[in-house]
Amino acid sequence: MRTTVGIVGAGPAGLLLARLLHNAGIDSVVLESRDRAYVEQRQRAGILEQGTVDVLRAAGAGERMDREGLRHDGIELRFDGRRHRVDFPALTGGRSVTVYAQTEVCKDLIALQLEEGGPLLFGAEALAVEDAGTDRPRVRFRYEGREDVLDCDYVVGCDGFWGVARQAVPAGLSRVFERTYPFGWLGVLADVPPSHDELVYARHERGFALLSMRSPEVSRLYLQVPQGATAEEWEDEAIWDELERRLETRDDWRLRRGPITSKSVTPMRSHVHEPMRYGRLFLAGDAAHIVPPTGAKGLNLAVGDVVTLARALTHEKETGSAALLDAYSETCLRRVWQAERFSYDMTTLLHSDPGASPFDGRIQLARLERIAGTRAAETDLAEGYTGFPLDEAVRRHGPADGAAPAGAEGAVRAAKGRAGHPGRRRA
Amino acid sequence: MRTTVGIVGAGPAGLLLARLLHNAGIDSVVLESRDRAYVEQRQRAGILEQGTVDVLRAAGAGERMDREGLRHDGIELRFDGRRHRVDFPALTGGRSVTVYAQTEVCKDLIALQLEEGGPLLFGAEALAVEDAGTDRPRVRFRYEGREDVLDCDYVVGCDGFWGVARQAVPAGLSRVFERTYPFGWLGVLADVPPSHDELVYARHERGFALLSMRSPEVSRLYLQVPQGATAEEWEDEAIWDELERRLETRDDWRLRRGPITSKSVTPMRSHVHEPMRYGRLFLAGDAAHIVPPTGAKGLNLAVGDVVTLARALTHEKETGSAALLDAYSETCLRRVWQAERFSYDMTTLLHSDPGASPFDGRIQLARLERIAGTRAAETDLAEGYTGFPLDEAVRRHGPADGAAPAGAEGAVRAAKGRAGHPGRRRA
Repeated sequence: MRTTVGIVGAGPAGLLLARLLHNAGIDSVVLESRDRAYVEQRQRAGILEQGTVDVLRAAGAGERMDREGLRHDGIELRFDGRRHRVDFPALTGGRSVTVYAQTEVCKDLIALQLEEGGPLLFGAEALAVEDAGTDRPRVRFRYEGREDVLDCDYVVGCDGFWGVARQAVPAGLSRVFERTYPFGWLGVLADVPPSHDELVYARHERGFALLSMRSPEVSRLYLQVPQGATAEEWEDEAIWDELERRLETRDDWRLRRGPITSKSVTPMRSHVHEPMRYGRLFLAGDAAHIVPPTGAKGLNLAVGDVVTLARALTHEKETGSAALLDAYSETCLRRVWQAERFSYDMTTLLHSDPGASPFDGRIQLARLERIAGTRAAETDLAEGYTGFPLDEAVRRHGPADGAAPAGAEGAVRAAKGRAGHPGRRRA
Repeated sequence: MRTTVGIVGAGPAGLLLARLLHNAGIDSVVLESRDRAYVEQRQRAGILEQGTVDVLRAAGAGERMDREGLRHDGIELRFDGRRHRVDFPALTGGRSVTVYAQTEVCKDLIALQLEEGGPLLFGAEALAVEDAGTDRPRVRFRYEGREDVLDCDYVVGCDGFWGVARQAVPAGLSRVFERTYPFGWLGVLADVPPSHDELVYARHERGFALLSMRSPEVSRLYLQVPQGATAEEWEDEAIWDELERRLETRDDWRLRRGPITSKSVTPMRSHVHEPMRYGRLFLAGDAAHIVPPTGAKGLNLAVGDVVTLARALTHEKETGSAALLDAYSETCLRRVWQAERFSYDMTTLLHSDPGASPFDGRIQLARLERIAGTRAAETDLAEGYTGFPLDEAVRRHGPADGAAPAGAEGAVRAAKGRAGHPGRRRA
């Protein structure tokens, strides 16, 4: 089997990359170890930055998102008995975020890919990326009971934190930056309308709580739990009781309870693999970096990576210049580190760290008061939450020949493909 | 001996308080354990916030400051081979800071006090504050070889971190918040014109460095040193070499060397004593809180405290209402915690922590890039550096009868005294 770009992993990164390359007239094959149902059901992110929405729409994958996604113009912070709303558009010149679950993004992209894109093989387990340092990289994989090889011009590892792609980078050529947090998130899905129109982030002595949603009918709720805690330890009623305590019921607000349909614990980790490229192997999304979920940055970072990569591959195809490919890692990492910083700040701002001193607790409250009290600090948060520009670094590192237009427009134009049109619409 | 307000300590807090009370027609006595020469020579802070400048001027103590102080409209950040200037007036609507050494502030206030204020006793060592919980608090002190007692309506502890005043607060009624940092500052004075027009804050792998100044002829320079390091370990040439490394000489800039006239090591500590009042004893300045020097907040916080206290005492005298005195601690602490937060952030932003991971180092750089790259983050820093409003909390907690006017104007009017005129000028 042979293709131009071999993509390992059919999460949002791999699927969107395949779509962007298809729109640019570049062949790809996507290998996914799981089956379609699994990919379409696994619970992950749910908050799309403005830039992510723009890219999905321009890529021709925004139809249902535009219909069903919920535009959110703010979040509420609760701390020390106070409630403070952060108004995104007012602080950022009109930007907002959209609540639309990762499962739905994947469903939309899978349908498009199967309908009009290149091969997308479910149940195709990548075993190794080989010869990544040469002109002929390939992916060895197992499919329908036998081993096969995918020969490529380029391989892209979109196979997440536990994937095999990253292992193809020789140890001496990479550096890992990591932090673990002494707590996790217990996340539940519940069949009950969300108790608030927007997301509520609560800092409480007993630990962080987050009220989120997947749709107007489905609530998504999180509780900070100690490291090593399991979902089985938590009875449903105990979860609701604890959410109520941390979110602080009042006369004008109460938590709606409903049947919990899923619960699981996510560990909290920051992780960056530098560089994000080795030879003709490129890493994108969770394969290269993990953020704690507090800032809702994981999916959005993955989108930024593959937009940058699709543009670089298109540029190479059109001009023969590898300049953007050579800049890929540095371009992405600039944005990645801003997202890592933001996610770390949001996490430490809101969680109760068992190792924190009373001094740390007061600093945490002073920080929240600063955000609630001054436009500069609040704007800094709103800008981070609605998203870091996709093209900031490209402006610095891109070629001067105009092949990679600067600004958000550039990302959108790249997503649309060469002719500046969205990909062919579904019939 | 008897007075209305007994002030323990003749640092900037005690001296300015005596001046403000004098302008308001309230008697005070200042007890200072050291001699005048010591107080006028001990090296401490050197950066006055806009609000501090306004208050000193309004109090009639700004004549020489206005003549000799250096207005600074920005600072330079150096990191990762980059140089970035933070433009204060452009970011804060016209605010700046003034370089004028604490020694000079003290000299000016001492001269005024001796000329026209109440008693200021040097060599008067406070031994204890007694009966602070009653209507008749007093200070027991030793002066010219014998013990004496100062009976007061109120006692104010301006005697710093090591002073006796704070010890009069019963242990069960107070709470201490503290953090120490695993490094200190080696500070030197050198008889050489400053190598840069403004302060330079350098984040370097080898540790933090700061280029500051006391006057157009005197440089003030700092190096981060390990915890426990002593000034004697450092030869003068080694200090200059290390400053040059961390500040990074370039074609367009080099460090001027000159004779070092003083060197000492300062430990780095954050400390807050809550509340700042017990009965008729009030704590102000370093007696109540310590910040690491990175943000230049120590002296400015002390000024904020005594302005708040002078206004509260004046209000009580004029109206008989203790409302502002009762709000003193909470009013001050709101500002104190913002300054603690800012000083902690500036410290962790720029210092090399021996316990930091490579991940922490990258976050530090991402934070500096964010400040250098976005107006919101840069404004947040500029607002913190030029100073937190003196009156923010008074607006929240002050009486509605208009006796304590809100806004910066209020602080200035209070400093001028009842009639709204500066204190009598020096002959």
